[in-house]
Amino acid sequence: MPQTGHQYDQQPQAARQTPQAHEGRQITQDRQYQRPRPDLTARLNAWHARLAAANPAADLEAGEKAGARLIIPGSPEWPTQLDQLGPGRPLGLWLHGSADLRFSCLKSVAVVGARAATSYGNHIAAEFGVGLSEAGWTVVSGGAYGVDGAAHRGALAADSPTVAVLACGADVCYPAGHDTLFAAVRDQGVVVSECPPGVHPTRARFLIRNRLIAALSRGTVVVEAALRSGALNTATHALSLNRHLAAVPGPITSGMSAGCHRLLRERKAICVTSPEEMIDLVGVIGDDLARQARAPAVPRDKLNEPTRKVLDAIPTRGGAGPASIAVAAGVSLDAALSALGGLAAAGYIERATNGWRLRKESASYRKAPDSAFLEPPSTPEPAPLDDPPSPEDADPPHEMAPATWEDYR
Amino acid sequence: MPQTGHQYDQQPQAARQTPQAHEGRQITQDRQYQRPRPDLTARLNAWHARLAAANPAADLEAGEKAGARLIIPGSPEWPTQLDQLGPGRPLGLWLHGSADLRFSCLKSVAVVGARAATSYGNHIAAEFGVGLSEAGWTVVSGGAYGVDGAAHRGALAADSPTVAVLACGADVCYPAGHDTLFAAVRDQGVVVSECPPGVHPTRARFLIRNRLIAALSRGTVVVEAALRSGALNTATHALSLNRHLAAVPGPITSGMSAGCHRLLRERKAICVTSPEEMIDLVGVIGDDLARQARAPAVPRDKLNEPTRKVLDAIPTRGGAGPASIAVAAGVSLDAALSALGGLAAAGYIERATNGWRLRKESASYRKAPDSAFLEPPSTPEPAPLDDPPSPEDADPPHEMAPATWEDYR
Repeated sequence: MPQTGHQYDQQPQAARQTPQAHEGRQITQDRQYQRPRPDLTARLNAWHARLAAANPAADLEAGEKAGARLIIPGSPEWPTQLDQLGPGRPLGLWLHGSADLRFSCLKSVAVVGARAATSYGNHIAAEFGVGLSEAGWTVVSGGAYGVDGAAHRGALAADSPTVAVLACGADVCYPAGHDTLFAAVRDQGVVVSECPPGVHPTRARFLIRNRLIAALSRGTVVVEAALRSGALNTATHALSLNRHLAAVPGPITSGMSAGCHRLLRERKAICVTSPEEMIDLVGVIGDDLARQARAPAVPRDKLNEPTRKVLDAIPTRGGAGPASIAVAAGVSLDAALSALGGLAAAGYIERATNGWRLRKESASYRKAPDSAFLEPPSTPEPAPLDDPPSPEDADPPHEMAPATWEDYR
Repeated sequence: MPQTGHQYDQQPQAARQTPQAHEGRQITQDRQYQRPRPDLTARLNAWHARLAAANPAADLEAGEKAGARLIIPGSPEWPTQLDQLGPGRPLGLWLHGSADLRFSCLKSVAVVGARAATSYGNHIAAEFGVGLSEAGWTVVSGGAYGVDGAAHRGALAADSPTVAVLACGADVCYPAGHDTLFAAVRDQGVVVSECPPGVHPTRARFLIRNRLIAALSRGTVVVEAALRSGALNTATHALSLNRHLAAVPGPITSGMSAGCHRLLRERKAICVTSPEEMIDLVGVIGDDLARQARAPAVPRDKLNEPTRKVLDAIPTRGGAGPASIAVAAGVSLDAALSALGGLAAAGYIERATNGWRLRKESASYRKAPDSAFLEPPSTPEPAPLDDPPSPEDADPPHEMAPATWEDYR
């Protein structure tokens, strides 16, 4: 059933040939002025031999016995997005599980990544599994160890159907350690394979399977991938199909994120850091927009510009009179006097023996009064924050520096 | 000396105004059909008051006493790339240190990031400091705690000049904990400030300083930045100046990488994961190309396609005869027999009682023979690797899965 000879599937494999192999072909090309034609007779004979070994009746019986069903293009459950694979479209799919494949894949995202995932990758995959499922998106993955398994588990934990596309028969449990996971997927989602029952996975079948993961979903997110990873093969399929491709960044010290970073660096993938951002990518324009990540507002944000200038000009130690504060702030004396009154009322500053200084002792501010000098807060007051950072302050230990300090450099 | 009123510098600040402030201005605009004009008289008076407090002669004396020198546009040491700031170009710069600023900044990269950097950020900043310096690039940064300090230290460790651009007078040590660092920078590189000696840093001066960091260097790399970070202000300046902007990704679970990820997500910055990739960005086209990251080749890469197909079709357990292997591999019996001979000679497979099976016991292969079936290795044989992974193999524990396994999904 797998169409090993199809050109669409051969592309990634060809790209991974060694320079020697490429050189060898080059020489042949130079000699013949064209790529050598495949020996069609030999190929036909190979297929003939394979045909003789095929036993469709036994396959159907084995499938029925295992509880799987076979769908073909035109079946009500057939996901029509697979038609985009052109001649590489599977001839049929074996399904095993309670969920309807077509319905499940209407809104679906492929979450793929390394088998040998780090704990970071597993954590992120599970978070994406939960987050996408809770937002009504089906998680499609390959049922492998690592990222795939974590993504499926996340989806199952969110009581959502999930689709596992296998490189072996739908009744074969590969990897064997995932037998309970696959049982849960069959119970709540569906296990998919284009191989007949009883077929074991091979390298080629994994690569061919990857095109189905990409083709079933609206977009693919690579959670973790080494430089040489099957997940990057899925990513290539997603790009070939003009589906959205996203990658999750990770530490540059981790080899398991190197593949993701290469996708980002080459601008093949969009950087996503949360399930919401992934949905922003694959969802409906406008409806599924992710909120832009924002740092929390600090009370200082509510001050108007001259008041902020005056606040910046007030010393931490000692004290300064209104005139010198006005000079340092670059505002008029009247403006400075007005701002000083507002700032004192809001608890930012206090009187010193020789003028004004920043108030240090209070850990929280009183609510800013609705004055002309302080913008009235229209949103609920944010949680009390530390003192406004002051550059003339003693140097804070940098592990303890408050987040707002960053605002300062 | 800092030009607080210049429009170029006001942009980022305006963008960070609260929605309320923005709304307030909107109302004013609607009423007047234009932005309210600044009260020029008041501003002039404020500048007059400041002018009265200025004492250039004392500044020059203090600078000379501290060992600093003043350069102005036209001085031999003036870095002409600052002219791109237009009217925002500094009127002059105070320099303190042994290095020549103009020469140091001919090939320079700004390494910026969070003060409250994580150990990851500090590590990466130091690595970039060392890597850039060893490749002949000067590291420009702000001398702050965290990423800035680590980048300077990395450059100093590589015996390279480094440029610290301060928001206070060149003789003021802010942060105070960096006094030994600044002494080392003065010794080997140069400390730069546009503030006269004795001036203390303020919020506004940090933001104004950031434009100099961006303008002095050919490109800026943001190592770690929270969503609200001064480093992002520097990034904005770099973009305004059409300089290269890069960001280092990090764990999405780290708030200190959120700013970097936003830059990547919005495609404002290029993803860089090593100093070489940064140099690829800012360097000479062709000369400074970074090697594309590649996973190591495995012996299997050297097999030609039919041989690879045959290898994939050989079972781990039991054994299979040449005819059934040929059917499974989809090659002719002759081709299968030839490939089996080569694979056996290369140590990939062995004879079983009923045919052939994968060889499991050997941890390394013999050198592949130069046969027609196996591409002759033209490069030195890579280090011995584990057995070629087999899908029918017992499931390997996923922490221990070899890197080549990933190739398999």
